[in-house]
Amino acid sequence: MSKQVARFCTIGASFVMLFTLYGCAVSTDEILVENQNAYIEALKNVQPGGTIKLADGVWEDFEILFTGIGTAEKPITLTAQTKGKVILSGQSNLRLAGEHLIVSGLVFKDGYTPTSEVVSFRRNNEELANNSRITEVVIDNYNQPERYEVDFWVLMYGKNNRFDHNHLVGKRNKGVTMAVRLNTIDSQENHHRIDHNYFGPRPILGSNGGETLRIGTSHYSRTNSFTIVENNYFDRSDGELEIISNKSGRNTFRNNTFYQSRGTLTMRHGNNNLVEGNVFFGNGADHTGGIRVINGGQTILNNYMEGLKGTRFGGAFVVMNGVPNSPINRYDQVKDANISRNTIVNSDNIQLAAGSDAERSAAPVDSRFANNLIFNADGRDTFTIYDDVSGIDFSDNIIGRAAPNSLGYGFKVMDINMSRAENSLLYPEDNGIENVGVSRDLKPTSKDATGVDWYPKAEPLIAFSSGQTIEVQPEEGALFNAVQAAKAGDILLLVPGHYVVSKFLKLDKPLTFKGADDVHISYERSTLFQIEDGGSLQLINLNISGADAPDNAGNSVIRTSPYAMLQNYRLEIIDTSFSDLDVNHSFNVMTVAKGTFADQILVRNSTFADVTGAVFKLDKESDDFGIYNAEYLTIGNSTFDNIKGALVDFYRGGTDESTFGPHFSLQNSTLSNVGSGKRNKSKSSMQLHGVQVTDMSGNIFKDSRPFLINHTVGEPKTRITKNKFVATPAPLVSELNSGLAPTAVLQDNEGINP
Amino acid sequence: MSKQVARFCTIGASFVMLFTLYGCAVSTDEILVENQNAYIEALKNVQPGGTIKLADGVWEDFEILFTGIGTAEKPITLTAQTKGKVILSGQSNLRLAGEHLIVSGLVFKDGYTPTSEVVSFRRNNEELANNSRITEVVIDNYNQPERYEVDFWVLMYGKNNRFDHNHLVGKRNKGVTMAVRLNTIDSQENHHRIDHNYFGPRPILGSNGGETLRIGTSHYSRTNSFTIVENNYFDRSDGELEIISNKSGRNTFRNNTFYQSRGTLTMRHGNNNLVEGNVFFGNGADHTGGIRVINGGQTILNNYMEGLKGTRFGGAFVVMNGVPNSPINRYDQVKDANISRNTIVNSDNIQLAAGSDAERSAAPVDSRFANNLIFNADGRDTFTIYDDVSGIDFSDNIIGRAAPNSLGYGFKVMDINMSRAENSLLYPEDNGIENVGVSRDLKPTSKDATGVDWYPKAEPLIAFSSGQTIEVQPEEGALFNAVQAAKAGDILLLVPGHYVVSKFLKLDKPLTFKGADDVHISYERSTLFQIEDGGSLQLINLNISGADAPDNAGNSVIRTSPYAMLQNYRLEIIDTSFSDLDVNHSFNVMTVAKGTFADQILVRNSTFADVTGAVFKLDKESDDFGIYNAEYLTIGNSTFDNIKGALVDFYRGGTDESTFGPHFSLQNSTLSNVGSGKRNKSKSSMQLHGVQVTDMSGNIFKDSRPFLINHTVGEPKTRITKNKFVATPAPLVSELNSGLAPTAVLQDNEGINP
Repeated sequence: MSKQVARFCTIGASFVMLFTLYGCAVSTDEILVENQNAYIEALKNVQPGGTIKLADGVWEDFEILFTGIGTAEKPITLTAQTKGKVILSGQSNLRLAGEHLIVSGLVFKDGYTPTSEVVSFRRNNEELANNSRITEVVIDNYNQPERYEVDFWVLMYGKNNRFDHNHLVGKRNKGVTMAVRLNTIDSQENHHRIDHNYFGPRPILGSNGGETLRIGTSHYSRTNSFTIVENNYFDRSDGELEIISNKSGRNTFRNNTFYQSRGTLTMRHGNNNLVEGNVFFGNGADHTGGIRVINGGQTILNNYMEGLKGTRFGGAFVVMNGVPNSPINRYDQVKDANISRNTIVNSDNIQLAAGSDAERSAAPVDSRFANNLIFNADGRDTFTIYDDVSGIDFSDNIIGRAAPNSLGYGFKVMDINMSRAENSLLYPEDNGIENVGVSRDLKPTSKDATGVDWYPKAEPLIAFSSGQTIEVQPEEGALFNAVQAAKAGDILLLVPGHYVVSKFLKLDKPLTFKGADDVHISYERSTLFQIEDGGSLQLINLNISGADAPDNAGNSVIRTSPYAMLQNYRLEIIDTSFSDLDVNHSFNVMTVAKGTFADQILVRNSTFADVTGAVFKLDKESDDFGIYNAEYLTIGNSTFDNIKGALVDFYRGGTDESTFGPHFSLQNSTLSNVGSGKRNKSKSSMQLHGVQVTDMSGNIFKDSRPFLINHTVGEPKTRITKNKFVATPAPLVSELNSGLAPTAVLQDNEGINP
Repeated sequence: MSKQVARFCTIGASFVMLFTLYGCAVSTDEILVENQNAYIEALKNVQPGGTIKLADGVWEDFEILFTGIGTAEKPITLTAQTKGKVILSGQSNLRLAGEHLIVSGLVFKDGYTPTSEVVSFRRNNEELANNSRITEVVIDNYNQPERYEVDFWVLMYGKNNRFDHNHLVGKRNKGVTMAVRLNTIDSQENHHRIDHNYFGPRPILGSNGGETLRIGTSHYSRTNSFTIVENNYFDRSDGELEIISNKSGRNTFRNNTFYQSRGTLTMRHGNNNLVEGNVFFGNGADHTGGIRVINGGQTILNNYMEGLKGTRFGGAFVVMNGVPNSPINRYDQVKDANISRNTIVNSDNIQLAAGSDAERSAAPVDSRFANNLIFNADGRDTFTIYDDVSGIDFSDNIIGRAAPNSLGYGFKVMDINMSRAENSLLYPEDNGIENVGVSRDLKPTSKDATGVDWYPKAEPLIAFSSGQTIEVQPEEGALFNAVQAAKAGDILLLVPGHYVVSKFLKLDKPLTFKGADDVHISYERSTLFQIEDGGSLQLINLNISGADAPDNAGNSVIRTSPYAMLQNYRLEIIDTSFSDLDVNHSFNVMTVAKGTFADQILVRNSTFADVTGAVFKLDKESDDFGIYNAEYLTIGNSTFDNIKGALVDFYRGGTDESTFGPHFSLQNSTLSNVGSGKRNKSKSSMQLHGVQVTDMSGNIFKDSRPFLINHTVGEPKTRITKNKFVATPAPLVSELNSGLAPTAVLQDNEGINP
């Protein structure tokens, strides 16, 4: 309901065009609206200095168009009756167009935008917002239902806009979370400010299009943006290889915290940017990276990187080689880079002249690398030099507790100890060291200082076995009913006996199924378990038989939802046996659907026998868009016997290099008679196509088809060591597109062909 | 609410075990129950002769277990308060176990069974129903949401059961509609009766598993069933190649009507069956068939077949060759067949010794073919003889108005006229013909005589342009809003102008988009149209551009729902142009998802230019389960210019022979520079893998990649005639599995290589 009284609106003819566009505003201070029509009316009437408040509650399918002409002194405000109590759900979104507009206090959740943008600083190509601000807005898991349908949460257009103290968490579908667009002159040299935002966990996408923040595009990358990104907190921004993708000039990235985030702050395109006072905590997690430098005039000053395990382009600190006279979408040479006073501690990789090859032949020039502190407690040399780096002037750097690096000059090796200061960063205990590494007064942006205080920064995952233990008896329907009643994290403890399951066990929460002793399960539908969005599955100490499954081609024991899943799932199989998966052809242990993604599939101490399909069928992203079905498949101490299909069909097509995975590990396991079925298209015991990291060691292959590894892009890491091949051909590794010599490491393997 | 009063139940110890199983019954006549608990109580108390009535209304998620011991005089009945007003919806089903049980009057709709059976004459493997009856029950589109998830609507177990006057319509997922099981001794020699049922339209499944009725399985096929199937009406039972699959002995198929149903009554396994007095009306529809004879002792008497266009094993009348000493799942030799007094009129194919090959070498023996009448108004010879048929005694047959068949004996050629009698069948006008063809008193079972009179036998499809015409202006959101408001069959008439569409146009009903003149459409999301379950799309006289689509790999103009669709859809593109589908790679005109199926895709007088993907991407069923994405793709008088992908990627994998499609036709069209993109995996301008019927004629191919045809099974019909190839290699046809010589017909094509 609106508080204001409708008034007759008299305006001169000269104003008509303007007010036709932005509504006829009359004087009023604050209008509370309770429905969409009231909002439209209020917008017509609100004056500079006025505020429209949305009433507390859930607003379903509200496409907010907020237009108006405020002034610096008298902005027009759209806010919530109570911040955090106004929920935009269903098919809602927000567009701003005009001058001096402020939006605050709204929460987008439980839905997704019907267009391609949730929050946009424009109405359409012509009508943009300037001098406007969005603050204290929450966007929480507001995703397109299709994982690989592209959309964007925040797009900044226009000039002099600010986006601050917002909370963005759980973007799970394709598309950068937030971007600054420079696509028309009215959006260039924009002087936007993006500050104090909480960029909450963004899980691994398993495709490109998972950046958290992008500024510009390659097309406008030689244009200046003058955007300031400061005091933001990036919490596990794991979407893809680039956390921030800078693609324009004269931007500032200052005092942001990157907490355990895979990927790097990448200065992909654009010149003369400043990266200063940022803090990266890797916590030793896979693929956590720091800063990657490309292009001219970049300043990298006083940044702190700790515990970053990233490799190659995803290292803790990377300076790339460029392409001579590079096309706009390739790599400009690094020139005039100033890299000073940074601390890189307990991190794995510093890469210089990285990417050097026939095309990227232009090494860095006119650059300096000075007063940086590099420390590794384990003493390893973190530097890799790929080309001539004489164009970088190294001086006054200190390497602590490590062998001298391969450069041999510009670095002083000192046996120092590091200790943590009050600001949570590590500094040399020897206070005689001055002006090397980050300054003592660097103050990392804390999580609490970002986002809003009225919305929780929740943890994204519920661990297996973190809930109650519930005992289940082998009675008709008991297991099905127990699944319905269980809560996320619970353990269903099956007492000894034979369980016959007549319905699908569908999981929309993490559950553990644990056998006491001598627990046998059979089932009558085409799968036993179906992992739905939000579900994860842990199996411990069970014996599962497919003997009662229908006489139907394509059964499984475990499968994902047939629909795309936004939430990544986990599957763990421990001390469990599978048998009799042979009532018809193509019976797989695990089948996945397109648009689903496993963070982790783990198998330990388990046995698989008599399977007419594959054990793990992870090959549904056949479009060659660089998408794949699982990040880690890790198998140890298990046996596979008489498997007609492959142990694994793992497929990651395409040739882009924007993801770290997939990863495959097989250790100390035995395969006997695997892959011989006539329907096994790959004619192999395993096919790994486009897998980025492979580690196979201590396995025995008997009477099996060979395994195939196709390297499709870049420099995948493949290690095949200490395996024994009995009446099984040697593995076949192919380099499909890279043009490189084979890069796989095959060592200490033993072939026995009786 | 139960009408009866609870009584103290005194029973002798000797009855305890029996009544523990089936409930403690007390005397009562009729119990009306209003909820599931009341039903369970009533079942405990109902006595022989008693009736439980379910209250009118919708019963959600009711898994009815109906058990009891009635007598022939005093059965126990479960019925509806008002027949047709009791709806079982959600996750409901029905199991019967016991003796002399009757169920009637229930309707299953708006849901699906949580187990693999909707209606089952058993509780579990041990507890079956005998002497029981299900009558006047409706199952209407009660399907698993996943098209290729297998389940069954009616499974008969036990003995002496009857299934009559039921109405089964719209089984759209995998799995035979109804089956008689012989899997234990207690279900063999069962003397079931299946009569007066309405088997309503079952659409094309696009896979095996689409039979309407099956009796037995190959495993028990040498067992007698003694099942009677009579007076049923099979209305457009188009699921797959077998309408009825008989797989056991001594069954009777009597006086059933097969109305415009694709496939045949197939005597696939089992001996000594009687097929008598059945009527087949093909109405000239594709693949309508009659009776297919295999095995020993079959009697085929007094059946009428008219207007059947089926070919090969799907012909109007087929006698197969067998395999000497056949394994139980192959083909037993035809022996002692008695084929008499049948009329086969205006039908295309009678096949004798069909399937003769190196394996199927045993021609029919000890059989007679007598007093049959064959008439074709167009005078064609319908007989094809594949092997030695001297084991069939041909006598006293008449061929009307046709050349003598290739046998040359046992047939009298007469120049007769046929006219329709009161029973709707055609008979020779010359009444001098006696005892040849079907008897004058054959009375076909009418649709009205089957099913129930309280449930409509509705038509399954809504035709394009059968509704209102609604004018649409080129204003923001107008087209989107018009789609929401339109009704099935409506025409949206677009006035001249440029339409920019910012949201997906999702269709869950058949709609026509028709341009007045000079109508241009562009769109901002990854597809313009999305066909959802229930939707179909007709485009007439439009110009569609992809120029405003997102910079995203894998856009489309039209796509299906990403989810499986139960309803087959239709797409027609007429007088329409497509251009600028090149903002990023892999931009297709049409993309389909796994688990979707088009009845028909039709293109006429249309142009397609500058496409980075494929025009029709129909290759999502890559599991090689014999599934495919579209039945007919028919293109005429169209041009395709600068297409990086293929004109069509059509994939039907696997080697089973249970489907008639897919079909592909390309006529009088021009392809220029088609298929040259580096991401085009097939490196062809068209790839047809497993297509069953291909007809390409009068086309011009310029500067294009070759087209590829892979014959995967059986005897696909491929005709490539009168095409011109300019700077384009000749088509490549491969026989992948059949071991046959190439069967494609290539005639009158012209190659020009400048």
